[in-house]
Amino acid sequence: MCSLCSAPTRPFVGPSRMVAGPGSSAACASELRALGISPSQGLVVVVADAAVQNLGLHLPACHSLEGAGYTVLIGPGVTAEPGPETVRALLPQHEGAVAAIVVVGGGSALDAGKLVSVSLTNALDLTAGLSPDAEITPGPPVLAVPTTAGTGAEVTAVAMLWHDGRKRMFVHPYLVPRAVLIDPELMVGLPASVTAAGGFDALGHAIESLLSTFRTPVTEAAAREALRLLSTSLPAAYENGDVASRYGTALGAYQAGLALNASVVLGHSLAYAISARTGLPHGASVAMALPYCIAHARSARETEIAEISTIICGEPDPEMLLRWIIEHSNRMEIPTSLAELGVTADELSAIATDCVDNYPRPNHPVPIDHAGVLALLERLHAGEPYAAWLDGASTTTPSDNDNEARA
Amino acid sequence: MCSLCSAPTRPFVGPSRMVAGPGSSAACASELRALGISPSQGLVVVVADAAVQNLGLHLPACHSLEGAGYTVLIGPGVTAEPGPETVRALLPQHEGAVAAIVVVGGGSALDAGKLVSVSLTNALDLTAGLSPDAEITPGPPVLAVPTTAGTGAEVTAVAMLWHDGRKRMFVHPYLVPRAVLIDPELMVGLPASVTAAGGFDALGHAIESLLSTFRTPVTEAAAREALRLLSTSLPAAYENGDVASRYGTALGAYQAGLALNASVVLGHSLAYAISARTGLPHGASVAMALPYCIAHARSARETEIAEISTIICGEPDPEMLLRWIIEHSNRMEIPTSLAELGVTADELSAIATDCVDNYPRPNHPVPIDHAGVLALLERLHAGEPYAAWLDGASTTTPSDNDNEARA
Repeated sequence: MCSLCSAPTRPFVGPSRMVAGPGSSAACASELRALGISPSQGLVVVVADAAVQNLGLHLPACHSLEGAGYTVLIGPGVTAEPGPETVRALLPQHEGAVAAIVVVGGGSALDAGKLVSVSLTNALDLTAGLSPDAEITPGPPVLAVPTTAGTGAEVTAVAMLWHDGRKRMFVHPYLVPRAVLIDPELMVGLPASVTAAGGFDALGHAIESLLSTFRTPVTEAAAREALRLLSTSLPAAYENGDVASRYGTALGAYQAGLALNASVVLGHSLAYAISARTGLPHGASVAMALPYCIAHARSARETEIAEISTIICGEPDPEMLLRWIIEHSNRMEIPTSLAELGVTADELSAIATDCVDNYPRPNHPVPIDHAGVLALLERLHAGEPYAAWLDGASTTTPSDNDNEARA
Repeated sequence: MCSLCSAPTRPFVGPSRMVAGPGSSAACASELRALGISPSQGLVVVVADAAVQNLGLHLPACHSLEGAGYTVLIGPGVTAEPGPETVRALLPQHEGAVAAIVVVGGGSALDAGKLVSVSLTNALDLTAGLSPDAEITPGPPVLAVPTTAGTGAEVTAVAMLWHDGRKRMFVHPYLVPRAVLIDPELMVGLPASVTAAGGFDALGHAIESLLSTFRTPVTEAAAREALRLLSTSLPAAYENGDVASRYGTALGAYQAGLALNASVVLGHSLAYAISARTGLPHGASVAMALPYCIAHARSARETEIAEISTIICGEPDPEMLLRWIIEHSNRMEIPTSLAELGVTADELSAIATDCVDNYPRPNHPVPIDHAGVLALLERLHAGEPYAAWLDGASTTTPSDNDNEARA
């Protein structure tokens, strides 16, 4: 029996309903009905990005709700890096029950909308974050209509807010949306740089989840499907951005979001530290970190890395996989070395410290320490992914603590 | 844009939580908590097969619930082919709220438990069936702990009851369990014949869903994963029945159950008609019908059939796929011709009539008529799958009505 089969998995969570395809955001009302929510039960609060509201992308959802007799309250537009005050501003001021939250937007709006739900039924400290075992009361169901393909927030138990210059993590089963509508028509106008960053964020979720010691047979299945979808549709979505390629990236990001039940590993930690230092968008720093994360995990995950390569490149050749990532990063104008970003060699140690101290990953398959991360950052500074891959064969010992980490 | 991308999909439904692995049935209490159900909200009704209760397979679940302070009421044991009276006997007689239903059992117990839930909040006519758009009130959440690998009832919106010698179909979003615990330890003692029939039922769900015009990118992903899992673990589970192979078949049946969002096609219709005539267990008749269903769909689904063959046999060779099904049927003592079952040639027309009239499949990719089904049954009577495959190239025209059928 393999190590994945010897103990119960961590719970796998996700929405209980999903509709996909062009125009699917107009299914809002029927999806609320299917969740047992009728107009008599109260208001439907619509949470949408400011940009989404400007473009009117929330209108098909709103019209569907109003047409079915729901009373809709559209909250103030959400902007990037939402904070506690963003969520507070979205709470309806007047009396009356809220029957459901419908979110139309990217990761920021989704995070805010998920927290609006539990803030309606609990006196949460929105500056403090939330842990999975907090004893809180479920809020009204959240229906998620993502307008970007990337974060996977439409399916996860996670939300993040900014407070005092730091990210606060909220992780709780009641934050999982109950239904998701994936409508590629809402994504056709996304700028190419947002497509690239979102796509690589999702690709990072899928690949890192396969390296994680928290992986399960179900997260692996979702990750494989995400890789199939993203490896073909992301380049097309970047080049021409038509509905078909948007559909593929959106479904890929959805599957990668489900794979996030296994969590991410060192790649995302490196990415947070790089973005904190350079201001690079998250998805771009995920893309930069990815080859080096794979290299670092090498000694414990040769089989999985070969499988990832087979799905993306057609052959179980890790160097081909690294080349795919670098070539597509170049094509999508994502930097592939820290030097390009103006980071100097003497900054690397501080980035390594930030990564190791502030973003620990007990589920990374190989032990993480400052020296190892610094060596990796030196390779990333010079843009040497193949050298990092060769380093990965020898510098580290697999932790082989899959079951421990899972517990 | 492919035909799968031109309109919103049918809703994809499933549980919002899942835990798998040996011993996972003891996670009942923590899963109820995660669904927001506390002991103060009422009774937990445990619905279990009679055989499950005799073997004590429900005890880890019950102990977990009682240990966490839930009040547990164990209903009378469910036996095969449950009817309206089975469900009525499971409704608690005394006053007091029911907070949740926990089902430990096979398809019969799962169907009964799902209907107990909605019977608690609605005055249902259990002899009449239920349609998806019926305006009913959600019942308490159902937590499913399957003890067989096959039906997929642990994840679907469907339940069936027997009344007056006929199956009554209940299909409604409120019948989908909210959480699933897949515990292979509960399946170790399953008789080989039950393993075979359940495994082929699940394999039929996966393969037929890929032929269905209702398929979506998400049902296809689940079906592919089901095929990966079942094609390796089913033969092993039949031969030695250890925990690892049970785990594989259970996860395969779970994924195949999710693929059932695309519904099944002619294979299941043939299987119902064959079982009605011969008394053969459902899964065994699904296995018998499968090669002939594939053959019938040939003209519209060459690509999909090649992919199914690649996953199961390693090569895109449909005849190899048919051989795999026949050889594994033989090995698992499932008949491969109607003649073996004592069916005579002059019975075939009546079986075809039953199939066409009582089990229509508007989502089968090729038009179904009596003459075509009779010709197929003549091949199945003689045990000639390859001849049926050759027939399939010429006898039918693809309906090419994917979008119509989806609507």
